[in-house]
Amino acid sequence: MIIILRPHSTDADVRAVEQRVREAGYEPHTIRGEVRTVVACVGDESQHASLESLVSLPEVDNVLPVQRKYKLISRETHPDAAVVNAGGVAIGGPALQVIAGPCSVESREQILATAAAVRAAGATLLRGGAFKPRTSPYEFQGLGDEALALLAEARAAEGLPIVTEVLREGDVDKVAAAADLLQIGARNMMNYSLLERVAATGKPVLLKRGLAAKVDEWLLAAEYIVKRGNRQVILCERGIRTFETATRNTLDLGAVAVAKRECCLPVVVDPSHAAGRADLVLPLALAAIAAGADGLVVEVHPRPAAALSDAAQQLDFAAFERFMQAIRPFVAAAGRRLSS
Amino acid sequence: MIIILRPHSTDADVRAVEQRVREAGYEPHTIRGEVRTVVACVGDESQHASLESLVSLPEVDNVLPVQRKYKLISRETHPDAAVVNAGGVAIGGPALQVIAGPCSVESREQILATAAAVRAAGATLLRGGAFKPRTSPYEFQGLGDEALALLAEARAAEGLPIVTEVLREGDVDKVAAAADLLQIGARNMMNYSLLERVAATGKPVLLKRGLAAKVDEWLLAAEYIVKRGNRQVILCERGIRTFETATRNTLDLGAVAVAKRECCLPVVVDPSHAAGRADLVLPLALAAIAAGADGLVVEVHPRPAAALSDAAQQLDFAAFERFMQAIRPFVAAAGRRLSS
Amino acid sequence: MIIILRPHSTDADVRAVEQRVREAGYEPHTIRGEVRTVVACVGDESQHASLESLVSLPEVDNVLPVQRKYKLISRETHPDAAVVNAGGVAIGGPALQVIAGPCSVESREQILATAAAVRAAGATLLRGGAFKPRTSPYEFQGLGDEALALLAEARAAEGLPIVTEVLREGDVDKVAAAADLLQIGARNMMNYSLLERVAATGKPVLLKRGLAAKVDEWLLAAEYIVKRGNRQVILCERGIRTFETATRNTLDLGAVAVAKRECCLPVVVDPSHAAGRADLVLPLALAAIAAGADGLVVEVHPRPAAALSDAAQQLDFAAFERFMQAIRPFVAAAGRRLSS
Amino acid sequence: MIIILRPHSTDADVRAVEQRVREAGYEPHTIRGEVRTVVACVGDESQHASLESLVSLPEVDNVLPVQRKYKLISRETHPDAAVVNAGGVAIGGPALQVIAGPCSVESREQILATAAAVRAAGATLLRGGAFKPRTSPYEFQGLGDEALALLAEARAAEGLPIVTEVLREGDVDKVAAAADLLQIGARNMMNYSLLERVAATGKPVLLKRGLAAKVDEWLLAAEYIVKRGNRQVILCERGIRTFETATRNTLDLGAVAVAKRECCLPVVVDPSHAAGRADLVLPLALAAIAAGADGLVVEVHPRPAAALSDAAQQLDFAAFERFMQAIRPFVAAAGRRLSS
Repeated sequence: MIIILRPHSTDADVRAVEQRVREAGYEPHTIRGEVRTVVACVGDESQHASLESLVSLPEVDNVLPVQRKYKLISRETHPDAAVVNAGGVAIGGPALQVIAGPCSVESREQILATAAAVRAAGATLLRGGAFKPRTSPYEFQGLGDEALALLAEARAAEGLPIVTEVLREGDVDKVAAAADLLQIGARNMMNYSLLERVAATGKPVLLKRGLAAKVDEWLLAAEYIVKRGNRQVILCERGIRTFETATRNTLDLGAVAVAKRECCLPVVVDPSHAAGRADLVLPLALAAIAAGADGLVVEVHPRPAAALSDAAQQLDFAAFERFMQAIRPFVAAAGRRLSS
Repeated sequence: MIIILRPHSTDADVRAVEQRVREAGYEPHTIRGEVRTVVACVGDESQHASLESLVSLPEVDNVLPVQRKYKLISRETHPDAAVVNAGGVAIGGPALQVIAGPCSVESREQILATAAAVRAAGATLLRGGAFKPRTSPYEFQGLGDEALALLAEARAAEGLPIVTEVLREGDVDKVAAAADLLQIGARNMMNYSLLERVAATGKPVLLKRGLAAKVDEWLLAAEYIVKRGNRQVILCERGIRTFETATRNTLDLGAVAVAKRECCLPVVVDPSHAAGRADLVLPLALAAIAAGADGLVVEVHPRPAAALSDAAQQLDFAAFERFMQAIRPFVAAAGRRLSS
Repeated sequence: MIIILRPHSTDADVRAVEQRVREAGYEPHTIRGEVRTVVACVGDESQHASLESLVSLPEVDNVLPVQRKYKLISRETHPDAAVVNAGGVAIGGPALQVIAGPCSVESREQILATAAAVRAAGATLLRGGAFKPRTSPYEFQGLGDEALALLAEARAAEGLPIVTEVLREGDVDKVAAAADLLQIGARNMMNYSLLERVAATGKPVLLKRGLAAKVDEWLLAAEYIVKRGNRQVILCERGIRTFETATRNTLDLGAVAVAKRECCLPVVVDPSHAAGRADLVLPLALAAIAAGADGLVVEVHPRPAAALSDAAQQLDFAAFERFMQAIRPFVAAAGRRLSS
Repeated sequence: MIIILRPHSTDADVRAVEQRVREAGYEPHTIRGEVRTVVACVGDESQHASLESLVSLPEVDNVLPVQRKYKLISRETHPDAAVVNAGGVAIGGPALQVIAGPCSVESREQILATAAAVRAAGATLLRGGAFKPRTSPYEFQGLGDEALALLAEARAAEGLPIVTEVLREGDVDKVAAAADLLQIGARNMMNYSLLERVAATGKPVLLKRGLAAKVDEWLLAAEYIVKRGNRQVILCERGIRTFETATRNTLDLGAVAVAKRECCLPVVVDPSHAAGRADLVLPLALAAIAAGADGLVVEVHPRPAAALSDAAQQLDFAAFERFMQAIRPFVAAAGRRLSS
């Protein structure tokens, strides 16, 4: 920690701050500048109390941390990239994985047809919402338990591991029983009790970035899971909320690049939610591959105009097949391969 | 719903869209403009399926809703302002209520001293965190059950109703037993299953606005609670996340004014979290009163520099006493009174 | 400046950084922490070259400035609040000033009628756009020179000093001849050559905050003007751009409070542009007064529905008269008075 | 335009609105819904007065435009992509162009060495700032006229066309004489008088997106230039301002994809300003290529740690050479080629 004092601080001010620093378990080193005085505090910030509370002292202008707050996932401690195994599919390894499927599971026909179509086109995991967090209580909330059973049937039919979102702590066990990869949605990224509950299942977790989450907050959410002993975490960038309304969200590929440098976890990208419109899914997916993403999450529906949620951004089967062809040269340029 | 077709749409395009509109239960009225064709769809959007999915049709450029999605809390259906009773204190009536207390309950001495001090200064409810959602898993997470017991003790001692946050569905019953007003934090505003669980207790709910929630999303979150039969909802604006870093969040008083016009629920403001620094709490509180807030949430701590969370923004007792004096003329200017 | 080195930096790394620091005119003080090494650099940052470029060295993780970059307007050097004299009206003194008038000057009748109406209601300066910056080249761009003449006529008729925006460096002299207070619009806050050109006229300047300007960038824009020898600068907060669309912009009253603490200049607030709708102008104006604003800028038009620009947010004469009555108790609560 | 009336509007309300619509030159078509009444207005919005002012009528809830406001650059009128010729280099054609050079021209040695290095590595245009818009008046403001002469010398030496920013209307002629492509910086995107002045030179213009500009505002800024008869406009995305601070700005590649679909102009990307740090320039550049960018703008400096501006984000010569090698497979995957 670095403590910056207010201008014209007196010797007594400085001594008062130094005293507080020692009480908190750090060794103060004071440097008197021409205009400002600075107290550098030596000590491991992860072992002692935080000094940030000292900003409330009248003689202190600012307190600046110098260490990262996440450590279990940090590249400083884990220089090598982690690979997460989701139902036999390796995410974060040499192959780029495509997770595809409908926004919501709507019927047996819909999910089985989609599973077959996305597998044929080259997807390696099947997504589908059973429990849907919807902004309005009057919108379709998902088929729930019935959807979990349909996803299991689709897995049996096509052999694709299943990704689905869990919303409630009380649902964690049944969703974990049905899914190979548990999704935490953007709205729940800071629902730490859900994160800890999901961590306890030992299943891999797909952690979507919150709409307004800074990169370090996203990594700290992952740290919550890893701290509970579950290292199987995949980060998923899906666009952040900004002033721009031409797209549903603003895809932040800088965050993907930063996350890959800062932590050891795989990072995948969901261009469907970022774009919010089908015609932009491909260019954003290509950009994500080029920026270093380890995988993609793409919404696919047999008949998007009849979808019960997120109709505007889902690809139909033909479009998804073209999509899978179109990404190939970029996957190769990135030095990777598709699994299939 | 208004459907805007792409330029140069053909008669066949228009008929295809009209057909879809009828299938969804609406009556289409088509107006061919000089450049664009528009299909106005007559029908109650709250009774029929949404037409938003039609935006995925190639001939459609945009689909615009014309109705508000919330209805139970809307001023259109409830022109009169609702008053919420929290442990005997009326929020939304002629008196402006001040909810005060520490960010976290840290000890028996701390919470009892604070309860006495804030009551003496004129606060009418006591806040205090028992379960704390913290961005880092290494930060103080609250005293939990012990804090609930201490809050109950403080209530008994000072007679102030208790406000405290509930984080986990599994904790709802015990927190509801201890608290008079259940707080949903900003991170959980879109945790709809928690909202529904809290609604079921029948206790009043303080619903904080999410960091990136638009006003209509905030009102729809309230609608989730009211739809479950619990009309005792108080909205709380506490600043949104923007590019500005001079304050911890950006207090959005326009949202307070909009919420008061759009819905019948009381709206309170938390200047402490918006400011993130103690010296700005008073000017933001005054502004909130002037903008029409029904109450304030203010963090108070016996010794802020020793606080285990949010040290920078908490007022000490003397500052809170000055605060309560300073707000008086603005409360009067707003045509309201303080309870005490 | 504080320089934070990467973890595991060697003695050679540290010496290399210290050498650079000395070359730039500072004295390095190195503190080796348990995890990180920090180099505090003693020297006046306003006298020596910036050390921020050192962040490009591979051994450096971050460089943090510890001094404010503005100094001529800083409270550190100017503890007392400045008062700006705009055509005989004192802004920043005990009286709260109301600047009112149409978005655009549209006709002789319109501006004369508005001048009479706003003066009668208690406004002390008249605003009106002669040159309008419009997002679309197909929208009304203002009457230009004709509007300047009409504003002069209105000043002669009603005795109110004139506020109008200047867009082009080539127009500065003629606008300065016609106006008592030169407005720099939000779009031009970072048009530094225009700021310097306006500074040179010696006329007072109303500097609107840019849509995406942080407080320190706003203050540095003011510093550009003051550095040219013109201390007559008034800051104007008018809302920033955020994700929220319920209001045209998000009024940031925290920025008003911060600006008042950080610098000596008067700060006024434009609730009309922040709200973007007439019914929210009053609550935001009241909030601005309570937050400490030294004045208000309010758009008034004889018949808003016929206005050539910003129709939605302009008040008609009756509404403005009610507005002026409604602000009185809040002006008094703030310990101020209206001029009239 | 679509006008949405308030709930419970009377026949008289509707007739009043229809009357206004006719006065403005449109034909009203009224549809009475179950809850809301809507008036669709037939007429070319680019020929008649805007109806947006009607939102100020008490019976009107909202007014929604249905046409794009830009037309000269719209794909609706210009389906084919435009190619801009900048000093003999075609931007927007099959070749992807790389514009490289220092943030600021600092000395003869610096700019000549950089020109030689970037040309050798494959760049096809040379950038370099002569006039620098700096947030603080105390920072280096560029060498000005001397820099223009040095750029001309570099062009003569290496044969690369020159890109440099123009800040002041008074400088436009001399900068146009020295440069092959005139840059409008992000701070000046809404400085419409500068845009018109630059348009009049007939030189190609590189129009950077403003920090808080929506895509349609950016395209309307381009429309200002094209409306003056200069169709040689290149759009440049360089990141927008959001809450995220891990990167200097948030690169918005969705905006690139939208701009390419909406308008006929070439779009290039500046990953250096978006990233703000050298190690992220490559991944963001690769992503930009994949998203469909027609070119890149990359900052290169002989010795970044000694740079007078933007040190953190500039590549040294060796890094730029690696950069040019690294982009090759992605340029090929995008079906394009590098010029050299």
